[in-house]
Amino acid sequence: MKTLIKNVLILTMDEHLTVYPNGYLIFENTDILAVGNLSELDKHDCQQVIDGNRAILLPGLINTHTHVGMIPFRSLGDDVPDRLRRFLFPLEKYMTPELAYYSAKYAIAEMQLAGVTSFVDMYYFEDDIARATEKMFARAILGETVIDFPTCDTTEAHGGLNYCRHFVPKWLGHELITPAIAPHAPNTNSKKALIEAAKMAEQFNVPITLHVAEMDYEMAHFAKEYNQTPVEYLADINFLSERVIAAHCIHLTEKDIAILQRYQTKVAHCIGANTKSAKGVAPVKEMQANGIDVGLGTDGPSSGNTLDLFSQMKLFANFHKTTLCDRSAYPASEIVKIATIGGAKVMGMANKIGSLQPGKKADFIMVETQSANMFPIFDPYAALVYSANAANVQHVFINGVEVVRNKQLCHHSLSAIRQDLDDTMQEFRRQAARLAAQ
Amino acid sequence: MKTLIKNVLILTMDEHLTVYPNGYLIFENTDILAVGNLSELDKHDCQQVIDGNRAILLPGLINTHTHVGMIPFRSLGDDVPDRLRRFLFPLEKYMTPELAYYSAKYAIAEMQLAGVTSFVDMYYFEDDIARATEKMFARAILGETVIDFPTCDTTEAHGGLNYCRHFVPKWLGHELITPAIAPHAPNTNSKKALIEAAKMAEQFNVPITLHVAEMDYEMAHFAKEYNQTPVEYLADINFLSERVIAAHCIHLTEKDIAILQRYQTKVAHCIGANTKSAKGVAPVKEMQANGIDVGLGTDGPSSGNTLDLFSQMKLFANFHKTTLCDRSAYPASEIVKIATIGGAKVMGMANKIGSLQPGKKADFIMVETQSANMFPIFDPYAALVYSANAANVQHVFINGVEVVRNKQLCHHSLSAIRQDLDDTMQEFRRQAARLAAQ
Repeated sequence: MKTLIKNVLILTMDEHLTVYPNGYLIFENTDILAVGNLSELDKHDCQQVIDGNRAILLPGLINTHTHVGMIPFRSLGDDVPDRLRRFLFPLEKYMTPELAYYSAKYAIAEMQLAGVTSFVDMYYFEDDIARATEKMFARAILGETVIDFPTCDTTEAHGGLNYCRHFVPKWLGHELITPAIAPHAPNTNSKKALIEAAKMAEQFNVPITLHVAEMDYEMAHFAKEYNQTPVEYLADINFLSERVIAAHCIHLTEKDIAILQRYQTKVAHCIGANTKSAKGVAPVKEMQANGIDVGLGTDGPSSGNTLDLFSQMKLFANFHKTTLCDRSAYPASEIVKIATIGGAKVMGMANKIGSLQPGKKADFIMVETQSANMFPIFDPYAALVYSANAANVQHVFINGVEVVRNKQLCHHSLSAIRQDLDDTMQEFRRQAARLAAQ
Repeated sequence: MKTLIKNVLILTMDEHLTVYPNGYLIFENTDILAVGNLSELDKHDCQQVIDGNRAILLPGLINTHTHVGMIPFRSLGDDVPDRLRRFLFPLEKYMTPELAYYSAKYAIAEMQLAGVTSFVDMYYFEDDIARATEKMFARAILGETVIDFPTCDTTEAHGGLNYCRHFVPKWLGHELITPAIAPHAPNTNSKKALIEAAKMAEQFNVPITLHVAEMDYEMAHFAKEYNQTPVEYLADINFLSERVIAAHCIHLTEKDIAILQRYQTKVAHCIGANTKSAKGVAPVKEMQANGIDVGLGTDGPSSGNTLDLFSQMKLFANFHKTTLCDRSAYPASEIVKIATIGGAKVMGMANKIGSLQPGKKADFIMVETQSANMFPIFDPYAALVYSANAANVQHVFINGVEVVRNKQLCHHSLSAIRQDLDDTMQEFRRQAARLAAQ
């Protein structure tokens, strides 16, 4: 069935940033067939016509770093120093396959309602998370965590590697899901495990994602042990490649940037989580100037607190303009670019998603302009970056399937998903209360 | 009529930050009668009972600096250097009383839908803005601008002073509206005009508000002309007092902070507008440590782009934590405090609003917890600061009157207000297009 969408302002996010003020888009099955000015559309044979009511239609937003299993942690110990080791690691012992599954369903629902159509995940029980992702119909790279201690889904250090030997081949070739390997960080894995993870990723031809240059103690560790930065270390052990998605990359030297460029390593920039935790502002301008692909990430729901990229775009604008002392740095269109085609490049899927062009997949969203915050609109990019919030997202399509209509999930009940998650959270809540009381 | 609200989590924002996890609030006419734990409420004689459905009930948010007449400017030239002199000042020639009136109605609607119950304004045609404020039923300090050139509402330099001689007495004693005098900035007014403004404010016993230490060229001007900071200059000419609300205060010295403290001058901190324009992060921690009252401001809709304090709270958290290199700086409760009772102190109304206590005015909001971004809630303050957005605001009461119910205005149609504004914007749009093309 062919569908025509009209009465929309279209931001294609193609390489010329073509805008169709009164545009149309036609898609059939999974693919975009045509996009252009409505005045140039003579006749059509579309069976379905959707009136966009002056919405802004743009590619689905792409979240290049998150932890969808971590909804249970949200609003827990936000302002506590070293929360990772005080709350997150200890509580992850109480993570179960069911909890990860229901959390992932919830997180994906939250993302879809906020216009996120693709994401890169790193967590445990990724096979269960993959089931949730399939059920919710989202496009994703799902990375199973590898870390140097026993965790909720393995009794051995670096057990994620064994997990991946089953998990990765099981999901290879899936239309929407790309399995991946996710070493937690360079300082939380042995050299041997990192090398094995990289080899396995190459063998299966899948992405690899990890946290890099995020923590002050990570930087101190590599300086002390190796007189290197984490990026230098990763290059040294032949870990880096174009299949690596490095999250955070806050503390980079010029040399690090040159290394990342040389290996065409991708970067997931998590401005919200990085600044909420007072870690700093990653040198995105310098990375981009050196040809490194950068996308936006929300980080997990306990670090970034929302899984929406509208708050990230706003934080990106204000932090990078202020850091660069230049209000004209990163005009709004550049920021929407990072959140769409930028993310697609990071995911290695720029041939399929990230811009609205014939032949690409029908992953797109419509942001309504009826709410109070969306008037007037002299510049639609500015409206998206500086004024919009996640609640302005009205319709969402993934791979040609409508997943959100009129701000509601089409095929699922959010309250039922929440109830399932809440029911599964009982033991987790008890343990969280115990830890908080300590 | 007495109204009881129950099934709500109440953040009183009183001096002990008392929280009632399963709370109730009773109000009658304009006043709060009681607030507490529902389990401690024996019986009641309330004619109306509202079930809050587990919403978070807190004092109405207070926007201590905005320009409600400037909705027409939103999303216009956001990323242009020196936008003030290139776009804003030239376009303000085309501001009319009608445009200011309809813009103010729109801006107030937007604020109420976002949970803002009180605001401090600075603009032109403040008599028309006062009519709009009265019509929309909002609590406000409305400051008529005084500036050293003829403007849309006066043919003479500093004509705002004459405007105030009629405007201020006309609205004195109004239940919700406090007229005020608003010299634009120390560098855009003569010494004589500033002194006259301060005297008039004293004579009428009304607030005075102005931009201070915001612009780099403002700082350079006072350094060059007087070898002083703007704050030193204002102290020198006897301008400062406890009735002054100084907006921005980005570039302050230790001496400036001591001066502001000595005069008990209040500060409206506009983190969003200040960082979007790359001006910097005001030293709020140091101001508060010296006993200066600080509130949050959105700035105008063209500078801050939304009039909601949820985005400001999030930006506040991330910017101040990062600037202070401390993730535990400004825990979420402190930020909600600044947005409520902090703002009330800045407005000089802490005896009436800003916290939920018997005898105070019934200005409060209910933030729903059903949306995807609002679960789970271990810490309600964290949920408000890090997760919530303006669209989570469900019900709003001002002075005991319900102005927003179920995310809709109770007594007005937003689309009708928008249509009126849009109709009035024709000439403004033509001039904006002309300027943008230059």
